[in-house]
Amino acid sequence: MPGTSAAKEEGFLYNNWYVAGWGTDLAPGERVGRTFLNQPVVLFRTQSGEVSALEDRCCHRALPLSFGMVEGERIRCSYHGLEFNTQGKCEKIPAQDKVPSTACVRRYPLVERDSLMWIWMGEPALADETAIPAHPWHANPRFRWKSFHYDIQGNWELMIENLMDLSHLPYIHAQTIGGNPELHFGIKTNSTRDGDVVRVSRHMPNSEPPPTYKTAKGFTGKVDRWQEIEFMPVLIRINTGACDADTGAYEGKREHGFSMVGFHGITPETETTTHYFWSVATDALADGVPEKVFQQTADTFREDQEVLELQQLRISAEPDRPLLDIASDVGSRQARQVLRRLMKAEREPGMVAA
Amino acid sequence: MPGTSAAKEEGFLYNNWYVAGWGTDLAPGERVGRTFLNQPVVLFRTQSGEVSALEDRCCHRALPLSFGMVEGERIRCSYHGLEFNTQGKCEKIPAQDKVPSTACVRRYPLVERDSLMWIWMGEPALADETAIPAHPWHANPRFRWKSFHYDIQGNWELMIENLMDLSHLPYIHAQTIGGNPELHFGIKTNSTRDGDVVRVSRHMPNSEPPPTYKTAKGFTGKVDRWQEIEFMPVLIRINTGACDADTGAYEGKREHGFSMVGFHGITPETETTTHYFWSVATDALADGVPEKVFQQTADTFREDQEVLELQQLRISAEPDRPLLDIASDVGSRQARQVLRRLMKAEREPGMVAA
Amino acid sequence: MPGTSAAKEEGFLYNNWYVAGWGTDLAPGERVGRTFLNQPVVLFRTQSGEVSALEDRCCHRALPLSFGMVEGERIRCSYHGLEFNTQGKCEKIPAQDKVPSTACVRRYPLVERDSLMWIWMGEPALADETAIPAHPWHANPRFRWKSFHYDIQGNWELMIENLMDLSHLPYIHAQTIGGNPELHFGIKTNSTRDGDVVRVSRHMPNSEPPPTYKTAKGFTGKVDRWQEIEFMPVLIRINTGACDADTGAYEGKREHGFSMVGFHGITPETETTTHYFWSVATDALADGVPEKVFQQTADTFREDQEVLELQQLRISAEPDRPLLDIASDVGSRQARQVLRRLMKAEREPGMVAA
Repeated sequence: MPGTSAAKEEGFLYNNWYVAGWGTDLAPGERVGRTFLNQPVVLFRTQSGEVSALEDRCCHRALPLSFGMVEGERIRCSYHGLEFNTQGKCEKIPAQDKVPSTACVRRYPLVERDSLMWIWMGEPALADETAIPAHPWHANPRFRWKSFHYDIQGNWELMIENLMDLSHLPYIHAQTIGGNPELHFGIKTNSTRDGDVVRVSRHMPNSEPPPTYKTAKGFTGKVDRWQEIEFMPVLIRINTGACDADTGAYEGKREHGFSMVGFHGITPETETTTHYFWSVATDALADGVPEKVFQQTADTFREDQEVLELQQLRISAEPDRPLLDIASDVGSRQARQVLRRLMKAEREPGMVAA
Repeated sequence: MPGTSAAKEEGFLYNNWYVAGWGTDLAPGERVGRTFLNQPVVLFRTQSGEVSALEDRCCHRALPLSFGMVEGERIRCSYHGLEFNTQGKCEKIPAQDKVPSTACVRRYPLVERDSLMWIWMGEPALADETAIPAHPWHANPRFRWKSFHYDIQGNWELMIENLMDLSHLPYIHAQTIGGNPELHFGIKTNSTRDGDVVRVSRHMPNSEPPPTYKTAKGFTGKVDRWQEIEFMPVLIRINTGACDADTGAYEGKREHGFSMVGFHGITPETETTTHYFWSVATDALADGVPEKVFQQTADTFREDQEVLELQQLRISAEPDRPLLDIASDVGSRQARQVLRRLMKAEREPGMVAA
Repeated sequence: MPGTSAAKEEGFLYNNWYVAGWGTDLAPGERVGRTFLNQPVVLFRTQSGEVSALEDRCCHRALPLSFGMVEGERIRCSYHGLEFNTQGKCEKIPAQDKVPSTACVRRYPLVERDSLMWIWMGEPALADETAIPAHPWHANPRFRWKSFHYDIQGNWELMIENLMDLSHLPYIHAQTIGGNPELHFGIKTNSTRDGDVVRVSRHMPNSEPPPTYKTAKGFTGKVDRWQEIEFMPVLIRINTGACDADTGAYEGKREHGFSMVGFHGITPETETTTHYFWSVATDALADGVPEKVFQQTADTFREDQEVLELQQLRISAEPDRPLLDIASDVGSRQARQVLRRLMKAEREPGMVAA
């Protein structure tokens, strides 16, 4: 297989919905400052409950608005008291009577849905709310789930590569979810592409369930097991689980089995740092089981984080040096091709980029 | 009001007296290394009491002389024992008999006055000691005062802006000296310019004294209150206080009232860091009152420091992006104009800059 | 003496044997990641005892191999399980059947000798093992010795300068081995050059032994004392000691006296950081004496480290600014000339550099 370039710092895809945070991050009257795609943003929720994303830099003296306070339906700068509404328009300058129309900060489209806040960092006119991916597991009463936010010192595409190729499980996660390497390589991986969506799946029919599955759901015989990965820019969903063998798992009848659904929102912070907003949902609700799933997954992803940050050190030192693809990279290569195509398209003349 | 560029890193004004430190920083035989205008300087006091400022880099192997020791009237490098007098001339090289005339380090004019050490980082021939601003409050027996040295991670002009526009008081200092915002904006601000000196004053005649004023001086009725700011490159003096109403405060009769005089020596360390040498003097000498004034002022200025450092983060990210001026910026804009004119002048051909 | 340029960041000498570590750093099955001449290297010892130096970056996804594990005679990457032999050839890719010939990482020649691991960072074809300097004191039963590894935040040539000019002893090491400055400057220093080897020696015949010498060896009368420094690229050996006066010390009969032999392996890590692998050997074996020698030397070299790191700060700020040579720089100047000549030679067309 010819060598291909790894995730190097080739910039960002702007015209895209990214996860900006969890709805629970902001109670009414709260604000938080975060950087997305190199742009500082303040997220705040007004007293009436509306969320807003503005540039985190007062137009007067550049103080971050996130250092300020929410006052009713506005955010107030803590330096000289300028107040901005949820659209970024300044509505009060204490030191003067009139507020000029130039007194404003950039607003970013922000939508709250499925307990997630989605932000659009590109051209506002292109922000189409219907394009926001749904994640109904966050509202499905059959599931329990938990949200997390990791700050990764690595490029966002390294995270995509990591999640699109689970052949790393027996090595990085040998002590947690890894299991036997031979089992992982004895089965076929299917990778398909449908528009901008890439799907990778591995099925293990009539196989021995791993110990954690037995604990979670009480399997006594063989199971039909699945690992299904779905990439869309820039989100990865990983659905894993098992049902008793020959009970319809591969035709979609899975409610009688055991499912874990991982949501992975991957939002570039800078070229070399990434917000990783993830959740895991499970339908194994027996006493203490969900808490174990949450804890084990959180530990596992910290192992991935360590790897990504070490990769970044080497890649930053020699960003143009090619890397070697291997067979299991098929899914991540397809995802990268989707991203390259979209990023190239939005930079072409006629496209309005950020 | 048209947008103007904020304090961006446009360099330094070299031919100017700057505060290098407090006289009490150096006992005989002591030395300290500090950077001013990007140049490393060692300040030391000889055994006989003379102070000197030399380049903090031995001409032999570049070791900082501040790592060495004062020996009598010289400073000795700790690596190979070279000794330099207060003029920067090497007078001893242990390893050889003769000292070549090239063995010397740069000397900076340094003057000790009013408990302050003033340094001249520009062309030495232009250093005129009579141009050093006097600050007689440090020797006035009616006052007690205390000195401070803060290291600010922000550009020096941000500090000037901060002090020239006290309309930030009700916002940054809401918990300390801020008080009621409405009071601050209900009064007129006068700004005048006299050569390189900019003065901003606000008078609050026949007003209710703030609680701290009552505590400090026991006012029982209305007072004539003042806030007077004086900028000269690069120093700001802030005189605030009050007298019983109609007792002559605005004609200069203030000895029967309550005065606080702030001295603010603003010395660039680098483009993005600043030495802030400040003192506050008060004539309210009742038991415990000066200590309260010192502590409250120190706390207040830490709040300003936090703001400046956050501003610097945003400005460093986009140094050329314009900012918006508002009405209360009148004083700081005038100060900036003075600085721009002086900086431009010293860069013109014919002027010998550093 | 004309001013000469100090150790500035002029790059590295590649075609040269450098100390990569101590043999005791690696037990069978262990690995460690280190950077030499800006190149990340993993050193590992296989289960059978062979040592190997490979590029510390997997060719697949750039993860440092030092984050992996030694498996038998190979090192395995911890991300997707690729295994490399001691020559850098990949012999296993778990996710696929065949291993392409492009799957390999760079190997660096590595030789273990005299308890040292020597690495060749330049053109492998030029690596001649017979050119590795011998250091028989590490295997001489008359001596006891101890090894150390300091990480210096300074350019490698600053360390050479430091060791080639011991006239710094009375200043930096006044509290430890320094002693009386006058004694150091009252004697003649000889500096000679023999090919790429520079030797500096100072003899103190019929002199009073310093207190530590008396303690170590029980001298009661005058001694013939020596300080002999030997530089070869890039290693410095310092032999100091004394014998009873007129007993043949200067003709090489020294076994009846007191000797300390310092080995100083100076390996650039980056332009501004250095691996300092050093040992000290002594033939004063009386109870507790070697331990005192080791501890005192370790403390002394920490003093040098502090100086070098402060020098580096000043030199990094103005790398092109000339420095002044003094009489005692004769040895370091000769060493620098050797290095400049070798570095220039290996950059010429026809020479294959790294």
